[in-house]
Amino acid sequence: MTKHILLMDGPDGPGLIYHVTSVLFRHGLNIIRNDEYVSPDGRFFMRTEFEAGNTVDTPDGQLVLDELRHIVPPDVTLRLSPKAKKNIVVFVTKEHHCLGELLIRYGFDELDANILAVVSNYTTLQPLVSKFGIPFHYIAHENKTREEHEDAILRTLSIYQPDYLVLAKYMRVLTPGFVSHYNNRIVNIHHSFLPAFVGASPYRQAYERGVKIIGATAHFVNNDLDEGPIIAQNVQEVDHRHTASDMSTMGRDVEKIVLSQALKLVFNDRVFIHQNRTIIL
Amino acid sequence: MTKHILLMDGPDGPGLIYHVTSVLFRHGLNIIRNDEYVSPDGRFFMRTEFEAGNTVDTPDGQLVLDELRHIVPPDVTLRLSPKAKKNIVVFVTKEHHCLGELLIRYGFDELDANILAVVSNYTTLQPLVSKFGIPFHYIAHENKTREEHEDAILRTLSIYQPDYLVLAKYMRVLTPGFVSHYNNRIVNIHHSFLPAFVGASPYRQAYERGVKIIGATAHFVNNDLDEGPIIAQNVQEVDHRHTASDMSTMGRDVEKIVLSQALKLVFNDRVFIHQNRTIIL
Amino acid sequence: MTKHILLMDGPDGPGLIYHVTSVLFRHGLNIIRNDEYVSPDGRFFMRTEFEAGNTVDTPDGQLVLDELRHIVPPDVTLRLSPKAKKNIVVFVTKEHHCLGELLIRYGFDELDANILAVVSNYTTLQPLVSKFGIPFHYIAHENKTREEHEDAILRTLSIYQPDYLVLAKYMRVLTPGFVSHYNNRIVNIHHSFLPAFVGASPYRQAYERGVKIIGATAHFVNNDLDEGPIIAQNVQEVDHRHTASDMSTMGRDVEKIVLSQALKLVFNDRVFIHQNRTIIL
Amino acid sequence: MTKHILLMDGPDGPGLIYHVTSVLFRHGLNIIRNDEYVSPDGRFFMRTEFEAGNTVDTPDGQLVLDELRHIVPPDVTLRLSPKAKKNIVVFVTKEHHCLGELLIRYGFDELDANILAVVSNYTTLQPLVSKFGIPFHYIAHENKTREEHEDAILRTLSIYQPDYLVLAKYMRVLTPGFVSHYNNRIVNIHHSFLPAFVGASPYRQAYERGVKIIGATAHFVNNDLDEGPIIAQNVQEVDHRHTASDMSTMGRDVEKIVLSQALKLVFNDRVFIHQNRTIIL
Repeated sequence: MTKHILLMDGPDGPGLIYHVTSVLFRHGLNIIRNDEYVSPDGRFFMRTEFEAGNTVDTPDGQLVLDELRHIVPPDVTLRLSPKAKKNIVVFVTKEHHCLGELLIRYGFDELDANILAVVSNYTTLQPLVSKFGIPFHYIAHENKTREEHEDAILRTLSIYQPDYLVLAKYMRVLTPGFVSHYNNRIVNIHHSFLPAFVGASPYRQAYERGVKIIGATAHFVNNDLDEGPIIAQNVQEVDHRHTASDMSTMGRDVEKIVLSQALKLVFNDRVFIHQNRTIIL
Repeated sequence: MTKHILLMDGPDGPGLIYHVTSVLFRHGLNIIRNDEYVSPDGRFFMRTEFEAGNTVDTPDGQLVLDELRHIVPPDVTLRLSPKAKKNIVVFVTKEHHCLGELLIRYGFDELDANILAVVSNYTTLQPLVSKFGIPFHYIAHENKTREEHEDAILRTLSIYQPDYLVLAKYMRVLTPGFVSHYNNRIVNIHHSFLPAFVGASPYRQAYERGVKIIGATAHFVNNDLDEGPIIAQNVQEVDHRHTASDMSTMGRDVEKIVLSQALKLVFNDRVFIHQNRTIIL
Repeated sequence: MTKHILLMDGPDGPGLIYHVTSVLFRHGLNIIRNDEYVSPDGRFFMRTEFEAGNTVDTPDGQLVLDELRHIVPPDVTLRLSPKAKKNIVVFVTKEHHCLGELLIRYGFDELDANILAVVSNYTTLQPLVSKFGIPFHYIAHENKTREEHEDAILRTLSIYQPDYLVLAKYMRVLTPGFVSHYNNRIVNIHHSFLPAFVGASPYRQAYERGVKIIGATAHFVNNDLDEGPIIAQNVQEVDHRHTASDMSTMGRDVEKIVLSQALKLVFNDRVFIHQNRTIIL
Repeated sequence: MTKHILLMDGPDGPGLIYHVTSVLFRHGLNIIRNDEYVSPDGRFFMRTEFEAGNTVDTPDGQLVLDELRHIVPPDVTLRLSPKAKKNIVVFVTKEHHCLGELLIRYGFDELDANILAVVSNYTTLQPLVSKFGIPFHYIAHENKTREEHEDAILRTLSIYQPDYLVLAKYMRVLTPGFVSHYNNRIVNIHHSFLPAFVGASPYRQAYERGVKIIGATAHFVNNDLDEGPIIAQNVQEVDHRHTASDMSTMGRDVEKIVLSQALKLVFNDRVFIHQNRTIIL
């Protein structure tokens, strides 16, 4: 049976759950899973998975949506999650571990997304990508201004029209101009437990500060470096014997798993953004 | 404003969320938080926190309950969580760590429950309990059959009529006869990551098996030793240097925190039981 | 049998382990546990637990120390850990959880230290402390300059001559002048995963940043706020439903356990400090 | 500079550390890292990394070994770790995640071992293996007795003479006869937190028991199913919403990381075995 996901957010008000459930009830549609959240500042978020019951052949998601648009207040946003898999382009520099993880998952249909292409400012990872038959675009940044480099990337992206960009250890900062093309649609993995160790060489910073736990953070990219909404984090214990280089090696396992887990949430339409925080339903 | 918690469980069917939300909507009551779950075998569970909106002074929980009873199918159970704190009696033997944790929390009003009394088969912890001005009942098991001992305990409990019994490292097995008096109302902390190391001396067993992680499990007690529904678990890394005794020492920190976290869930009516598993909403 | 702990640190050089083990071997002393570490910048650290073998009645630690002083280079520091328990004074403000943890452990002889007294700038925790028969010194900071307040504290400390000060949620910043009296002998628990959220209201900061994991850090106090060498850290997962206040409540469990674990390391002479980092042997 | 690893184990006795350090000191060799452990039942284990100091060109490991053999008691085992990478053969059935992890690491020279070949009782993973240019041996078990099947495998292994076999989700039980050929040289990943859920379908068992944490265990294989010495374990939180199938999906991330971490320890000669427990130095 076809499953639909209804996504709703807006100012909280009386009867929002009731309105949705009454429309679904009237159409004989079954709620498989429903999650809602009201933020302390009074914003309502809801994610409803529903499907046809026994008596109805196909739930007409669009019909439900149209009907709800007449009932709920106009400032409440309603979306139906597109059923098709998300299309993504993956950005890398030289490190293979996050890309390798995504390729293996994609190769066995576990990614909940289609990798349309890989973009890199180095050729290091081209052999790995070619093993999986995915287009690899080498777009060097040398001898280019930042804007020229990003323009070249944007031209390449225009071929693919991806839903999301995944920065799988892409070691260049994107300009606000570039980011504005993919607002809340760029996911980055940062190799620290943000907001600790923003910026470059976080494992070096972690070593020098003498922390006992390192971590990784998957987040949306916005215009402030490493300041976008956090989607997932995880950590790993270290001790004084670990050099910055050891931490970097150990951190890779955390980075790739955190990135994968964050992408799973994003690609399944489970992530809302509100005031630079994620709400995960 | 007075808050109510509505608890509902029964066979899944069309419109259950809708029915509840429509009744609340009609009475002008606000849903603060709503969580539901449908098990793979088709049972529906819902926990709804609601309170009066601006236009209504007091939500009449009983009225809502009565109205819902006429709407939902008869095999759906509906309960209103009693607003008052739960009353508990704590059982201990000789170890102080879980009891100490509960007493400190209780002393600073963080337990979400009233400790009416402590029962023990030893006098070891009497001085600790007396610091907090709580009745301590020493009920020795020596020279008594198991039934005589439990009868003595039951007589003591009859004074207090507790809602829950908390076995905070009570090192005796309770008979089915005793357990039947407090069905799903006895919470135990077991000093292992169940179902590993059921029974006596779990840290000794863990040491001998050479595990790299130890744990603790808070669970409801039923008639099969260490087989009741699990409420919460947590773990702690160990290595070959740790003796069984070291593990026991380290494990205490896990035990007391897991027990506290499980009790918080239970005392806030967030735990449903279905087929020997807990559903935590 | 009496156990000794030999602590050694200095520039790395040939034969340091050999020298120690040869002296112990000649005296018929058994090494129970030996841990060493050489930092990347070439500093050697060693902690050696030893005791008499079967043929010798008492290991004369001082004799071993004197003999080693003639063998190892003069810039190598050698210390014998004093066998007696460390004496401590605990500082608190209004929060009870860390203090309660320390008192319960102390009351059951699990702290590896003697709590000589508790100092506070409020009277809130006096009733708790008095349950355990420990002197409580209320030293108000109102109507005093920071220096006057610290002078009053120093006068009180002069009675006790503690080995360590434990800041168990003491919510005032100490001046460099005060800290200099207890260099590397003040342990603080900070309610964040340092270096994230230095300073005041870390849970509020964590909430606003939208982190998915919170933490706590036990560290030595030096002249830079929250910048001293980190001894232990631990973390706790949170999600969007948790308010800053929820995080604060959940964080308490982490704080008290991390503080206890750090103190155990410090009181057992397992912590060396080098370049603002701890080496834990 | 060439690094050597000396491995030593035997009954504890006076001067063992001293003997090793004195021989190394006399030869002008530097100890880079030294770890030792004495088990409660009196067995001594030591792992010493050493290299030439400034005055000596190459440490002659064999010379050190020969000299030590004359000094230490005859029941003490001394080994020099072979410097070359370990050679391994990987066994799989149908699941790709552990194999994919090993291949990616191997492809980027991060495995500390050479994958000589992959053996499988299915062809499912042949395409993945062929991407990395490694021989894939499909050895079907159908229409063969267990002994015939294992004989066919042993014939294949005889070509490669691997140091270790890695069972990367190989879903068949090996006979004692087979295991005896690779005593303490077969590493398996079991998809549960052993000793919980021994045997088949551990995630199904975990779901039915209603655990709140699942895990994975890397262990040496001996003749008792899932009873060999544990090398590494890790865990992952789950809740009532997770089906056995969800747990299986989530568990894969834990499995592959735990297996990789265990192999790193084994391939770096950091794992000793004593009484069915691992000692990791």
